[in-house]
Amino acid sequence: MSSKAIYVGVVGVGGVGSHFLSQLSKLPNAPSLVLVARSSQTLTSPAPSYPAIPPADWQSAFSSSTSSFTKSDAWSPEQIASYLSQVPGRAILVDNTSDPTIASAYPIFTSKGISIVTPNKKAFSSSLKLWEDIFSTAASNNALVYHESTVGAGLPVLSTLRDLVNTGDTVTRIEGVFSGTLSFLFNQFSPPSPSTSGEKKKWSEVVSQAKELGYTEPDPRDDLNGMDVARKLTILARIAGLEVESPDSFPIESLIPAELANLEAGSKGTEEFMRRLPDFDGKMEELQKDAESAGQVVRYVGSIDVPGKKVKVGLQNFDKDSAMAGLKGSDNIISFYTERYGELPLIVQGGGAGGAVTAMGVMSDLIKVLERLS
Amino acid sequence: MSSKAIYVGVVGVGGVGSHFLSQLSKLPNAPSLVLVARSSQTLTSPAPSYPAIPPADWQSAFSSSTSSFTKSDAWSPEQIASYLSQVPGRAILVDNTSDPTIASAYPIFTSKGISIVTPNKKAFSSSLKLWEDIFSTAASNNALVYHESTVGAGLPVLSTLRDLVNTGDTVTRIEGVFSGTLSFLFNQFSPPSPSTSGEKKKWSEVVSQAKELGYTEPDPRDDLNGMDVARKLTILARIAGLEVESPDSFPIESLIPAELANLEAGSKGTEEFMRRLPDFDGKMEELQKDAESAGQVVRYVGSIDVPGKKVKVGLQNFDKDSAMAGLKGSDNIISFYTERYGELPLIVQGGGAGGAVTAMGVMSDLIKVLERLS
Repeated sequence: MSSKAIYVGVVGVGGVGSHFLSQLSKLPNAPSLVLVARSSQTLTSPAPSYPAIPPADWQSAFSSSTSSFTKSDAWSPEQIASYLSQVPGRAILVDNTSDPTIASAYPIFTSKGISIVTPNKKAFSSSLKLWEDIFSTAASNNALVYHESTVGAGLPVLSTLRDLVNTGDTVTRIEGVFSGTLSFLFNQFSPPSPSTSGEKKKWSEVVSQAKELGYTEPDPRDDLNGMDVARKLTILARIAGLEVESPDSFPIESLIPAELANLEAGSKGTEEFMRRLPDFDGKMEELQKDAESAGQVVRYVGSIDVPGKKVKVGLQNFDKDSAMAGLKGSDNIISFYTERYGELPLIVQGGGAGGAVTAMGVMSDLIKVLERLS
Repeated sequence: MSSKAIYVGVVGVGGVGSHFLSQLSKLPNAPSLVLVARSSQTLTSPAPSYPAIPPADWQSAFSSSTSSFTKSDAWSPEQIASYLSQVPGRAILVDNTSDPTIASAYPIFTSKGISIVTPNKKAFSSSLKLWEDIFSTAASNNALVYHESTVGAGLPVLSTLRDLVNTGDTVTRIEGVFSGTLSFLFNQFSPPSPSTSGEKKKWSEVVSQAKELGYTEPDPRDDLNGMDVARKLTILARIAGLEVESPDSFPIESLIPAELANLEAGSKGTEEFMRRLPDFDGKMEELQKDAESAGQVVRYVGSIDVPGKKVKVGLQNFDKDSAMAGLKGSDNIISFYTERYGELPLIVQGGGAGGAVTAMGVMSDLIKVLERLS
């Protein structure tokens, strides 16, 4: 616990990144911010003194022409890693993007002893080889890799799973609603008790409404295809000890009707998708009615059967008095069934999306990395 | 992250302690166990080589007459601190007791740079001065103090609250069922839907049954007086930033009827208490019926209004479709309402008592301390 200088580079200044920089500006004893990268430009603090970029004021540092910082075009991950590896102390990369290019370059950072904190799922849910490269180079170069916000944003999901595994508990099953969007859609479409008006919502209406409220991605197909959930499940399964090759190596039930699977990408395809979605309301209503007649509700869940080595993403029915059915708003819920906890799972529940809570997960990871490095 | 030798002393080998030692025996790269103390005896590893006591085998080390370890009578906290301060590396005290004597001696350990990991609530829920002494001596002597298991056993409760506070979120309210015993009693006594037999349980019957199942303390009054919950609330409130003087400085609703409050301590008093408890079934039934007629259930909860600086422990009614009402078995549930999370709280739920999960909380704290010290 000797005191070493610690330097941080932040890539990405979008929804999560801007919240993160605002939180960083209020952190007591914050490490020195020496790099801020956005898609078009990179701002760095010059050697050898490396003055800190003010986290609350990075925008004016970018725009001012007399800034004491260096403005460059967009840097490659290699350039960023090379810069961070030269600071006179320990370096941490905070990647607040969802960019696969920088994700696939993580081993370049960790092999130089640069620690990584990130909500970017790509690095941990792509090939198993990338996962192994990241963690093995990190271990042999004293770099730390924390990525709590890749599942459930700021909710303590990965830290809880790692605690269970590290203390020697046997995790038997992980099950939950891992998408705020799909949580919202099914909490509306298949509520445990009828709405006060008694009116039933059609599936396509619920999707349209969520899209208008900004609860879906600009293209709702990016939520409905289940890939985001599959990526989260891949990460959880790997921490639980399963060697999942990629998110494509287990069944994912897509909510995009087969007839609409081949519409073009982009806004024209999105428009056509939304226009034709009502044609499939009958099929969704059937699923909802089947559940209801059994006293159940429909939810879109991910589950991992650890001893059976099975990962699954799709629709499932749950009793109306279950925690899954009681979910509200766009909350996530994650249940860990383990040997020590027995029949009733350890449950973590709450908002699992949004800039502020995602940035909070990144920030609490950063604090833990700072505690371990200093 | 240089590699320093780390030595651990364990006090207490009861329900939690024995589970902890068993988990320690399976921990990869475990630190050296050099002291095991039980109420009557202390086993230590001799200087200068400090051979490790095998954690799985401490009992035979105690009983063998040819052991390579030193057996002594029970040591005072001062003796234990003095021994641990002399090891050639960093030392950690793991206190698996609920003993107030060692708890009040924690500042002696922390002032010698000895880190502490413990499920012992006493140190953190007694006078505010003791709390401040522990953390200020720890900070100035590079000692770490982790006590996750003092609230909710192995559930990630304190770590979550510290993450919220440390990242700058504003916690507005904390509310929950913090006692496995009281959870069990009220889940039985005031279920959200009537039992299949339609039969209603009397309060005194539920208490008797819980006592027989070992779900209460040997003297159920130790659960029903609310003190255990009040201690947990004191800890949470202090982490949330409130200067709570002691668990006596806020209202605690005791479930011991006033007429039985002055029965003697010990088994004779317990017997008389259990015998006379049915006289008060009518009053409890009234509470339950009042709740039911409003579509609610009764729960024994603790709550903290952070901006209002109010801590409260007692009975409260909740809607039948709330997470509080849906609680099962002897689960704990803790809801954190914060500015960032908005209307819907971050919820942690699951078993909050028992040797194995309490020891797991201690072990995950130990792992974190090891990560930070090494």
